[in-house]
Amino acid sequence: MGLGGKVAIIGTGIIKYGENFHQSLTDMVYEAVTLALADAKVERTQLQAAWLGCYEPMLYGFEGNSGTFVSDPLNLFPIPVTRVAAYCASGIEAVRNAALAVASGEYDIVLAVGAEKMREVPSRGSLVAQAVNRGHPVIAKGRTAPSMFALVATRYFKEYGVNEEALCAVALKNHYHGSLNPKAHFQKEITAEMHARAPKVAEPLGLFDCCPTTDGAAAAILTRADLAPKLTDRYTIIRGIAYAVTAGYWNTQFDPSWNFTSFRSTQEAAKAAYRMAGVTDPAKAIDVAECHDCFTITEIVNYEDLGFAKPGEGWKYATGGVTKLGGDLPVNTSGGLKSCGHPIGSSGIRMIDNIHDQLLGRAGKMQVKGATMGLAHNLGGPGAVAAVAVLSQP
Amino acid sequence: MGLGGKVAIIGTGIIKYGENFHQSLTDMVYEAVTLALADAKVERTQLQAAWLGCYEPMLYGFEGNSGTFVSDPLNLFPIPVTRVAAYCASGIEAVRNAALAVASGEYDIVLAVGAEKMREVPSRGSLVAQAVNRGHPVIAKGRTAPSMFALVATRYFKEYGVNEEALCAVALKNHYHGSLNPKAHFQKEITAEMHARAPKVAEPLGLFDCCPTTDGAAAAILTRADLAPKLTDRYTIIRGIAYAVTAGYWNTQFDPSWNFTSFRSTQEAAKAAYRMAGVTDPAKAIDVAECHDCFTITEIVNYEDLGFAKPGEGWKYATGGVTKLGGDLPVNTSGGLKSCGHPIGSSGIRMIDNIHDQLLGRAGKMQVKGATMGLAHNLGGPGAVAAVAVLSQP
Repeated sequence: MGLGGKVAIIGTGIIKYGENFHQSLTDMVYEAVTLALADAKVERTQLQAAWLGCYEPMLYGFEGNSGTFVSDPLNLFPIPVTRVAAYCASGIEAVRNAALAVASGEYDIVLAVGAEKMREVPSRGSLVAQAVNRGHPVIAKGRTAPSMFALVATRYFKEYGVNEEALCAVALKNHYHGSLNPKAHFQKEITAEMHARAPKVAEPLGLFDCCPTTDGAAAAILTRADLAPKLTDRYTIIRGIAYAVTAGYWNTQFDPSWNFTSFRSTQEAAKAAYRMAGVTDPAKAIDVAECHDCFTITEIVNYEDLGFAKPGEGWKYATGGVTKLGGDLPVNTSGGLKSCGHPIGSSGIRMIDNIHDQLLGRAGKMQVKGATMGLAHNLGGPGAVAAVAVLSQP
Repeated sequence: MGLGGKVAIIGTGIIKYGENFHQSLTDMVYEAVTLALADAKVERTQLQAAWLGCYEPMLYGFEGNSGTFVSDPLNLFPIPVTRVAAYCASGIEAVRNAALAVASGEYDIVLAVGAEKMREVPSRGSLVAQAVNRGHPVIAKGRTAPSMFALVATRYFKEYGVNEEALCAVALKNHYHGSLNPKAHFQKEITAEMHARAPKVAEPLGLFDCCPTTDGAAAAILTRADLAPKLTDRYTIIRGIAYAVTAGYWNTQFDPSWNFTSFRSTQEAAKAAYRMAGVTDPAKAIDVAECHDCFTITEIVNYEDLGFAKPGEGWKYATGGVTKLGGDLPVNTSGGLKSCGHPIGSSGIRMIDNIHDQLLGRAGKMQVKGATMGLAHNLGGPGAVAAVAVLSQP
């Protein structure tokens, strides 16, 4: 009766992530959608509806506040283009709403696209400046993303007796994976010494523990699972997709019941997505995952929240190589947010593109052999919201 | 196969619209949702997902950028709360996405809520200030909403040989209707002399041709049509609901093919909604409508774009009393945006609340006798997007 298994992805496209001063938000959307349409072998005119994930277009201007700027360059008129905003989970939220619409039977072929200008914004438009300008007069001061996730690292270290070496393992892995990904913002490996000597951004998080500030866009074409084989022989199925809100924006870190070493939002979104997908043992069922490594500590916590590792043991998956290419459960083979960057609204769809490629066996040097089921995960809010998508081969 | 007829509205709620300095955005959402839940006789814990329509929460602060601030006061954790942003059509867009999700079979009972702080914002947060701060360096200057719709009035006057008296008829009607609506911002009738003597905002639009700046919130509870009778004996059916994007944000008025006397977005959204609803002659099928009277001229143009009147004859529906209570096709019996105000994200859901009440025969002094099918219409963008919902008795 529900959504799980009803919807297929028949094409995806991502642009080169980076400091894209040569591209407007519109340019990036145009390129990503054009790539996805070509991949799906679908004409622009076959699209019946679209969803846009964009977190804070206001950093850049008015474009992105609604779907009009997607319609305009692609001449999608008059189909509906819905914009959703879900902090850093906006990408998977766009796909989720697109999937619900397809599952309703109202539309056969739809588009989900995510884009964000992060690097090329006026200085008054940076996330930090915006927090100061528009945030809570007391709580918001100093409450930057690195500082918030630094608290998680500090607590995790204390609870489980680990240190920066665990973070380093994630950073090295994701920079190595990024070196294999021609679309990543950073495509260079780093060394443990570089990680250790990097300036601290928010103790204990150093420069190589933080994802960069990046422009990017990604798109996916969805259809009903029963229609997909008539359109293409290259498609994947959305087995489960869920979004969870577990706190208000300002109060995640002021919830006295929060342990600071896990995110309820990820746990709840994963639980819902696994239920839809019929997944009972994610560590066994999932062959490859893209998770939200906005900071290295986040990836470690994600392992636990997604059910890949037991609480307190996520760090071992990083230091032990389990989640590196060649390991039992490769995570962020794209290089993750760490190497791809995190153009907010696009990241979830970029992840779905990566997993889609893995399941189709076309992930190039990043390929995980024999991957049949994969997962994409967004965390946002920060920590207040999360989205999880489980994809599989047909 | 599609959405039409599959989804029911089982409860709605709107707060008193006005200059709500005593209520935060959160307070307004809490009140509207609480009213809707009580009306639907549904517990908060029965909600499985929610959608929020909010256009520009950034005018007010960070709240509203995502669904977290809906979850928090109502303790809706961990269900998904999706925020959609579609300019002035954000309200119906929230309901449309909620309806698609219900029709997919994934959720049984969901919430759609819209809210906006318009009156109580810092002066730097007004729409005009924002347009200057963040808009296009050339096109945006002077491009306020009144000035844009004034161009439509000017052209309409020239094409069809009418004058301010047509606008006056709409203003008098909607202020009269507002005087019957205890939730309206303005509940006072005006006279033709007051209309004529009012200061001009943007020639030919005077003060009483413009909707006010208002705070407000509205909510609706949706379920599958087959479940509705098990939950309540007071429900209506969504026969059709559609959203259309027909231009980019900046270029509606720079499209050389535009006639300035109609809005393609309304025409396309209406066409799609009527197709879903099986409506072929809207003037006959629709008994009562709430349409987007951001300015009096807009309502006249809406009559034509929605298929109630032929092109060039919409004004006669106003001056002839057709759309006044007691006329053949009463429009904006709530008082419309003119008397209710236009807290952007809420307006579409406020309209749906009004139509729902009409179809249930509980619209009080605003009641249209024997209304069995009604319509709600949002225009936004300005003019680039529109949404139309067609509701009926079961």
